[in-house]
Amino acid sequence: MIYVVFVEPESPGNIGFLARTMKNFGLTNLVLINPCELKNESYYQAMHARDVVSNCEIYETLEEFLEKANISTAVATTGNAGGSYNISKIAVTPETLSDSINYGGNICLIFGREGNGLSNQEIALCDVIVSIPTHEEYQIMNVTHAAAIIFYELFKKEKSYPVDTLEPASAQEKKSLTAIMDEIIVKLGYPEHKTKNAQLVFDRIIQRAFITGREAHTLKGTLRRINLRTKEK
Amino acid sequence: MIYVVFVEPESPGNIGFLARTMKNFGLTNLVLINPCELKNESYYQAMHARDVVSNCEIYETLEEFLEKANISTAVATTGNAGGSYNISKIAVTPETLSDSINYGGNICLIFGREGNGLSNQEIALCDVIVSIPTHEEYQIMNVTHAAAIIFYELFKKEKSYPVDTLEPASAQEKKSLTAIMDEIIVKLGYPEHKTKNAQLVFDRIIQRAFITGREAHTLKGTLRRINLRTKEK
Repeated sequence: MIYVVFVEPESPGNIGFLARTMKNFGLTNLVLINPCELKNESYYQAMHARDVVSNCEIYETLEEFLEKANISTAVATTGNAGGSYNISKIAVTPETLSDSINYGGNICLIFGREGNGLSNQEIALCDVIVSIPTHEEYQIMNVTHAAAIIFYELFKKEKSYPVDTLEPASAQEKKSLTAIMDEIIVKLGYPEHKTKNAQLVFDRIIQRAFITGREAHTLKGTLRRINLRTKEK
Repeated sequence: MIYVVFVEPESPGNIGFLARTMKNFGLTNLVLINPCELKNESYYQAMHARDVVSNCEIYETLEEFLEKANISTAVATTGNAGGSYNISKIAVTPETLSDSINYGGNICLIFGREGNGLSNQEIALCDVIVSIPTHEEYQIMNVTHAAAIIFYELFKKEKSYPVDTLEPASAQEKKSLTAIMDEIIVKLGYPEHKTKNAQLVFDRIIQRAFITGREAHTLKGTLRRINLRTKEK
């Protein structure tokens, strides 16, 4: 079970934004600690995640929630990981978190107040701190945007939800394209190193171009015809 | 140069949210296409990225911007990559985009209206489509949260966008490649619709492959020789 905990949210709209981005990544358990009043704005910003808002649990303190929910891993988030207030714990990136997290127990991802984040005492209750690498000029993200990135990174590693796109060309299909082009290039009468280079360039382009299966099929037809019609030197 | 383009934003607050998340990842060039009125809310939500909002450029249409800014790679974003409206282009994940993008030229990342995203016509103007893998139950993200994830992925891989990459091929160089291939394909004796399709597929691959200037030069040499040696039917 994964809980998303928002500690003392100050803006009703942000509760909705958080709920929406949770649902975008398959998360539904929202916990609010001593929140501002839920308002229409919360439901409005949640869009199709209104159910996440209306099913939220509310606790008075973070400590109370951690005890009652039998949390095995509490993950704190901070935009200020290097702060001297917390030198005793090392912050990891969302990617590292995603690599190492164990989904077997009850996990919670804890986000702090819009203005001041989590307190030292709250962070001390957590097992892991996660911080997003940002540009040095402006490191503090909006809390719901930071949450989106962490959810995305966790979801991505789980690999349960592929992007719904056209079928990309298989490695085999791409190989058959470069194989035909290799034959064509050999006929062009280049010196050997130029032949190799020309083949390499075409190969790289094919690997990099996100070719679909359908495109590979069309291009293969084209290259075959070219090959048939190309005179050897 | 990386531009972030927001097409017909409807909410002044979202312009601010976008500006803030841009600055979090070192991006500063905001372009608005036919936007709603900029209001206090835009500057308020931008927090310490008010300068990004006040320095934004405004254009009437996406087409106008793409021409004037001399864009080499236009990246469209969509929450609905599998839609039948656009089966001709494949969507990539933010990670794949980040792996292959070449920061040498003028790149733009284009985000659509809050309500309806980008139109088919607008997507057709772009070279690459990027889509974030989300949970099947609720795929449509808030636009500024989607933007945060894409910026994060780009930033993570590039660690503040070094510009000392290989020079990308210019639009002109890419056009000269497709022009030669067009000639070759015409010689293949396909029926007209097949000729068009074969040309289109090659064109798309070239636009999408982040070809460097050096690669374009080599490929051009190859295609020229092929053209000289290809017998007409």
